[in-house]
Amino acid sequence: MQAELISVGTELLLGQTLNTNVKFLSEQLAFLGINIYFHTTVGDNRERLRQALNIATGRADLIVLTGGLGPTEDDLTKETLAEFLQLPLEIVPAELEQLKTLFKKSDFKWTDNNAKQAAFIPSSCILKNEIGSAAGMALKKGKHGYIILPGPPREMTRMFLHYAQPWLKEKFQNELQGVLYSRVLKFMGITESGLEVLLEDLLQQQKEITLALYAKMGEIQLRITTRAKNEEDFAQKIAAVVKEIKGRTPRYLFAEDQVTLTEAVAQLLLKNKLTLSTAESCTGGMLAECLTTVSGSSEFYLGSIISYANSVKTQVLGVSSELLEEHGAVSQEVGSAMAQRIRALTGSDLGVGITGIAGPGGGTPEKPVGLVYIALATPDTTICNKYHFIGDREIIRRRSVFRAYYLIWEYLKNILDE
Amino acid sequence: MQAELISVGTELLLGQTLNTNVKFLSEQLAFLGINIYFHTTVGDNRERLRQALNIATGRADLIVLTGGLGPTEDDLTKETLAEFLQLPLEIVPAELEQLKTLFKKSDFKWTDNNAKQAAFIPSSCILKNEIGSAAGMALKKGKHGYIILPGPPREMTRMFLHYAQPWLKEKFQNELQGVLYSRVLKFMGITESGLEVLLEDLLQQQKEITLALYAKMGEIQLRITTRAKNEEDFAQKIAAVVKEIKGRTPRYLFAEDQVTLTEAVAQLLLKNKLTLSTAESCTGGMLAECLTTVSGSSEFYLGSIISYANSVKTQVLGVSSELLEEHGAVSQEVGSAMAQRIRALTGSDLGVGITGIAGPGGGTPEKPVGLVYIALATPDTTICNKYHFIGDREIIRRRSVFRAYYLIWEYLKNILDE
Repeated sequence: MQAELISVGTELLLGQTLNTNVKFLSEQLAFLGINIYFHTTVGDNRERLRQALNIATGRADLIVLTGGLGPTEDDLTKETLAEFLQLPLEIVPAELEQLKTLFKKSDFKWTDNNAKQAAFIPSSCILKNEIGSAAGMALKKGKHGYIILPGPPREMTRMFLHYAQPWLKEKFQNELQGVLYSRVLKFMGITESGLEVLLEDLLQQQKEITLALYAKMGEIQLRITTRAKNEEDFAQKIAAVVKEIKGRTPRYLFAEDQVTLTEAVAQLLLKNKLTLSTAESCTGGMLAECLTTVSGSSEFYLGSIISYANSVKTQVLGVSSELLEEHGAVSQEVGSAMAQRIRALTGSDLGVGITGIAGPGGGTPEKPVGLVYIALATPDTTICNKYHFIGDREIIRRRSVFRAYYLIWEYLKNILDE
Repeated sequence: MQAELISVGTELLLGQTLNTNVKFLSEQLAFLGINIYFHTTVGDNRERLRQALNIATGRADLIVLTGGLGPTEDDLTKETLAEFLQLPLEIVPAELEQLKTLFKKSDFKWTDNNAKQAAFIPSSCILKNEIGSAAGMALKKGKHGYIILPGPPREMTRMFLHYAQPWLKEKFQNELQGVLYSRVLKFMGITESGLEVLLEDLLQQQKEITLALYAKMGEIQLRITTRAKNEEDFAQKIAAVVKEIKGRTPRYLFAEDQVTLTEAVAQLLLKNKLTLSTAESCTGGMLAECLTTVSGSSEFYLGSIISYANSVKTQVLGVSSELLEEHGAVSQEVGSAMAQRIRALTGSDLGVGITGIAGPGGGTPEKPVGLVYIALATPDTTICNKYHFIGDREIIRRRSVFRAYYLIWEYLKNILDE
């Protein structure tokens, strides 16, 4: 079975937007065993989109379009597809009602140009947009399948995974063969090359199974991929190599597949029945923000003081001004004191303190940009590590957050292992 | 003059690589005044690349290919183009020599398959690769131009800027007219459709000038694009329409071009010589994190208390427990108290309080997921607004942050206007 992706949007042709949708969809279709021979991008132009549809229909079985589903004049993907297929577009009253309700709920003002978002080809499958107003559409005409998804990546990926993919599996069940399965193992506290050395023989040995390392911000991912009949068959095929990898990397492997770093740390905190609070300076709340991305984080996370100004460090957080004067805000002593003070103030089991220079301004020869102290105060002791991070402001802040996570994770892991 | 981009590489069709090349090249060609109507991606396959070349040659004057210039079997872009144009490929001795020297220098071992990287169509222009072994090629045949560039983005961008772009300017000097300039106006506090209604006649009237609306998270962008001789000519051409737009949108227009929302708010705070602190619950530090993305934010931002647990709201932030019990943590009263308390604790001029239910858990019929109170305490008064946001946890948190920004921005804007 062959598919073609058509991305619609003049902003793509002008180079204003990076097309991440084709990467995601290509990967997803590959996992379903669907071949892609062409991607096409076309602007918000009826005639040229028609041309692209015509060419794609001539050489593919499935055509997946993204973009041009919005309420404005230049959003014309649905209209053009309907015209091309010589099928009508009709307002679906229930969808229109839902759209109006959505507008009411969200305090946005309804304008009539939004109604076109409730128009669909009769007999098509309406693909729900869980986080936006532009619903998608999927239909089969003869042997061809057509799927229309919205352009914004967050809406598109969710709609594909929850609605378009199940539709595909149902409507093309005979055409889909040999699905690719994969598992991702996630590591931290080690570099990509360090991990490669550790797993070198395994990376080279495999034939049926593909092992590939990817360096992501704050973590290294190892993707294990092979064709299998089903989940069970897949698990069996990769069992030996997964066991071998796990045996070699107990200090680094923190999660699998969809589990994020935050979730891995959250699980360990819950398992140990421990609470956490944080005091941040240079990261400005980034650690708190990351820790609270998980729903239910209130079960283990109490709160934070972002002591950006020194006056907040002393008057709100309660770090002694003598300590600040003697060692400076960016020091082992102040980092440790921040962790201890937030722990005492909130009554949490663990306290984290981060102080550093994220730049680009504020560095000195003794305390250069990238110098960060990260402390963990526990019921027994306080650890404070010194780091030199390389990168811009954003990267230095991100790396600080990842290192803080690693510090917490290592501590919790050791408790469990004891 | 019209161009088409053809990206060659099976890794792109499998979704293993994000195609950043098309974004770069589209932007570069747009600046030269060259229109792009299509992007096509095709795998490392001779027949399908031939097909793509055939279609592109039928609808564009200039075809720019990237990828497939390496030494291995599956690198076949040059060969396929030569075949398609019915022109020979010949080894250029000087290039072969240079290639061998490069190999000697880099202690890579020379293998004979590398020789094909020194083969070019006679009479073509060889495009030098300053940081890799795969040289590119540019040629004109009839009215058509063809440019081949390597796939790795660092090599490609350098080759384009240093060699392909000058070649284009020389060979197509008569066809290139009027470089495209654009300005972006950024709005918040209004929807895309609301803005469209407000500017409807302007959006339709324009002929020489293109106006296009894009909805981004938390803001709406209006891109104004036209051809001009230089920056000055551009500013003059769009002056009238910009003035008209600004006149209609004083409550929504917050920045232009590269200026971010955080920078716009930071500038207003600095201009008014005011300091800010924040108290966050459901956003968990996201507002603090955003406010501190700007270097120098310590000049106006003092800090935050992330009062995730109720005990932190009372014991650290100092919200009265009676208030919490009577109205609940997610209420107008507690939102206002949070803003007032953080303002008092840090001694800042302005205090922001955010409390709400980000979900997915924790909602009730009276206080559903998405209900958020955002308060601003100033020297004179405290405003607290109630919002119902739609979306997942991440989106509800983001929208809350954007609304908090809008509240601060509106307040500062009014001071300046008075």
